[in-house]
Amino acid sequence: METAAADLFRGTDFDRIFHPENIAVIGVSPKGNMFGTGIMNSIIAVGFEGGVFPVNPKGGEYAGRKIYTGVSEIPVPIDFAVIAVPAEHVPRALEECRLKGVAGVEILSSGFSELGTEAGRRLEEEIRDIAAKGIRVVGPNCFGIYCPRSGLTLLPGPDLSRKSGPVGFLSQSGGMSIDFAHIGKWMGIGFSKVVSFGNGADLRETELLAYFGEDPETRVIALYLEGVDDGREFLSVLKEVAAKKPVVINKGGLSEAGSRAVASHTASMGGSARIWESAIRQSGAVQVGDLWEMAEACLAFSLLPHRVYRNITVAGGGGALGVSACDTASEFGLTLPPLDPDLTEAILEVLPKPGSSAKNPIDAANPFVGPDAYREIFLNAAKQPGIDIQFLIQLVYHYKSLSLALGVPKVKDVVPYRELAEEMEGAASRTGKPIVLVLPNIKQGAESLDIEEMNRDMRTVFLEKGIPVYDDIRKALRAVGHVSRYCSRRAAPGS
Amino acid sequence: METAAADLFRGTDFDRIFHPENIAVIGVSPKGNMFGTGIMNSIIAVGFEGGVFPVNPKGGEYAGRKIYTGVSEIPVPIDFAVIAVPAEHVPRALEECRLKGVAGVEILSSGFSELGTEAGRRLEEEIRDIAAKGIRVVGPNCFGIYCPRSGLTLLPGPDLSRKSGPVGFLSQSGGMSIDFAHIGKWMGIGFSKVVSFGNGADLRETELLAYFGEDPETRVIALYLEGVDDGREFLSVLKEVAAKKPVVINKGGLSEAGSRAVASHTASMGGSARIWESAIRQSGAVQVGDLWEMAEACLAFSLLPHRVYRNITVAGGGGALGVSACDTASEFGLTLPPLDPDLTEAILEVLPKPGSSAKNPIDAANPFVGPDAYREIFLNAAKQPGIDIQFLIQLVYHYKSLSLALGVPKVKDVVPYRELAEEMEGAASRTGKPIVLVLPNIKQGAESLDIEEMNRDMRTVFLEKGIPVYDDIRKALRAVGHVSRYCSRRAAPGS
Repeated sequence: METAAADLFRGTDFDRIFHPENIAVIGVSPKGNMFGTGIMNSIIAVGFEGGVFPVNPKGGEYAGRKIYTGVSEIPVPIDFAVIAVPAEHVPRALEECRLKGVAGVEILSSGFSELGTEAGRRLEEEIRDIAAKGIRVVGPNCFGIYCPRSGLTLLPGPDLSRKSGPVGFLSQSGGMSIDFAHIGKWMGIGFSKVVSFGNGADLRETELLAYFGEDPETRVIALYLEGVDDGREFLSVLKEVAAKKPVVINKGGLSEAGSRAVASHTASMGGSARIWESAIRQSGAVQVGDLWEMAEACLAFSLLPHRVYRNITVAGGGGALGVSACDTASEFGLTLPPLDPDLTEAILEVLPKPGSSAKNPIDAANPFVGPDAYREIFLNAAKQPGIDIQFLIQLVYHYKSLSLALGVPKVKDVVPYRELAEEMEGAASRTGKPIVLVLPNIKQGAESLDIEEMNRDMRTVFLEKGIPVYDDIRKALRAVGHVSRYCSRRAAPGS
Repeated sequence: METAAADLFRGTDFDRIFHPENIAVIGVSPKGNMFGTGIMNSIIAVGFEGGVFPVNPKGGEYAGRKIYTGVSEIPVPIDFAVIAVPAEHVPRALEECRLKGVAGVEILSSGFSELGTEAGRRLEEEIRDIAAKGIRVVGPNCFGIYCPRSGLTLLPGPDLSRKSGPVGFLSQSGGMSIDFAHIGKWMGIGFSKVVSFGNGADLRETELLAYFGEDPETRVIALYLEGVDDGREFLSVLKEVAAKKPVVINKGGLSEAGSRAVASHTASMGGSARIWESAIRQSGAVQVGDLWEMAEACLAFSLLPHRVYRNITVAGGGGALGVSACDTASEFGLTLPPLDPDLTEAILEVLPKPGSSAKNPIDAANPFVGPDAYREIFLNAAKQPGIDIQFLIQLVYHYKSLSLALGVPKVKDVVPYRELAEEMEGAASRTGKPIVLVLPNIKQGAESLDIEEMNRDMRTVFLEKGIPVYDDIRKALRAVGHVSRYCSRRAAPGS
């Protein structure tokens, strides 16, 4: 049985669009000075394995590749095309693609309805008309499609990751799409597909959301929207999809000035903040305030079990960090229950005295408390009835003075972070309670680049073990709060 | 005429405490394995210019310095002493200091009321009794005093800055004091004095706040509090001081779990969140949620004129960044008025087409728009009636592809950031409207350390020109919002 949302995109061969065998890039000149050259170079740099056929009516050759004078001249079937020619030439290029049997195109060119001119609107109308005759269009005025598995990449994205992952991202803004793809790469978010759909002349939020809802490669959906085409239809699809998979939405243009800004950015209508917020909440989706919060939430949805989280433990060096964690936790619906005296006692046994405390938060009082001690801390703390998840805060900069004292040139050689990651992975798996790592960096001066390097290595190692990493306890708690709220709403719809 | 608050600390020679000629460090052994050694080494490393006299009843020598067997043996007058001996020996050491005529001490040792034991409370009572006889005490269970001008430093602070500045910080938490001192160093916050007062057996929040209120070196006051000794007196002093200087407060322990955590951290009572928030608002002080927000606010208070800010302009690359700026601005009481058509036109003349827009936000559409263009943008935008402050967003990572394309090995060699800083300084001074720089870093992977390095250099250069720098538009807007709200409340007390 197919769902209503899936009906929306019936007949569109998304597989040929996202995983094309052969692609055409329309707008590549022999001198390489045309707009399409950049995207072709990026697709080749990322390592797209299929055939790449540049097109330009004037023909010629670029970087050892023959430039075809038209799509129809290409001797093989083309699944997907990139159109990067001046706006007025776009309709003809699109029509050629349709006649060739191309399944879909991305139009990177701008100069359409976002100009606010009659000519721009008319050109966009032409595109819509051709699309209606049987070819799908992403754009115009967009950065296109990024699909790590196939090797398609966004407009300025020659260095995006080829590692696939669970997050599908739909963005009305090209800048947001490339920013999120870059942030995801180091933050530990793998993408199934990213689609920057710009003006959305044909394919846009609702249909793509319905497709992501059905796409088995996509387990978490993120949306950056400035406006929607058909609010009622969008919300109905959103509700259906959010019941199956987490959908994280950042809606731009909710303020008065923001609403004006989206009008000149993607020609969208903003809509009132209150109406949007209540509609998104009722749909069961997760609303976030900006790109960073969206990324942090997506990381949590990617790596943590989708459960309701309420009771947490926090361990690390520094009493005030623990106090701050408590206060912040309560903002996001989380709480730190006091540990039973026997657990507190067992934890205190592995901690230095005086100065440490182990009631929850667990204040290790010393930054050099090692992996074995943290293993015991988390194994014990997890025994407290009702604990759902545990947080470890590490201030790595303290190791710099240790490395100086020991005469070890690299701070990373004195931090036992690989062992710590292994112990934390082991503790999370033995207890069934996930562990989240928080790595604040309070020394971000020009002279402390080695601490930043260390933090980045440490982040990579923990992510490889499936442990989410944040640079701030507030971000970590907020992200876990999003997962928890999504899951509790899904359990009790309409609440 | 002296104010009521100043009466509180009459008779205390704070000058001898913060700017001592000679200090004693009690708890230094010949082997250097006693607790006091670390702080003495730190004070020497920071470059304290006065006399430093180590003390230990067993005598001996450490690092070429004679260890005196008692404070009374030191042949010169001592202004300030550091006490770092086990808790049970503290009262005797303190009494010796009093007899020697020492003006004040910091007691770094823990093992007092924070233990929650009768013995701990009794020891702290002894300290209070000795103090009452005529010596001032900071601590116990604290990290002490940091004073860049004199060279006193916090417990683990051998590498804190010697550059003095307008911010005075009072912290009940030692960890917060050292974290903030480190953050300030790179974020661009100069400190007049930082005092970590821990359990606050003698000197604590109210009296120190009153002193900072009168201290001409302190123009901005920051407080991290877990609880207060006398709420009524504190609020009365707070109101008086906040009418003269901005006071930024982070109150820990406002949640239920947080309140429990402060009890085992500094033995304080938390107090209800609602009561605190309303009391702080009525006092005219600025409440912040965590250490980061406090630092960001202090940076704005340090570098920006203390005015009401309402109307802003935002310029930079990326339409969605502008949309996000608008939405966020409205959260913090700021707004982006549309620019008059002639100003928009003048700005569009220096921007690449198509893709750019200049209605406010100003979307440069291209990351390589240079210093001259941004000068013209801000000179023109400032002509819009009512503009109070301007924001520049720069995404430096784009220059990395440029440097690769040009074969320039270091990304910093292709970014015209010194010129940009100069033009921005000039534009701010010509228009009388401050400029704030926002430097987001979306490429924080292990392979992109050069972008981080670039951002840090750029931060330093802009800070040297007196331009505040934030890594996120939200943080920048929130900080400016704090300055604005403080100034509008001061203009209309009780609102």
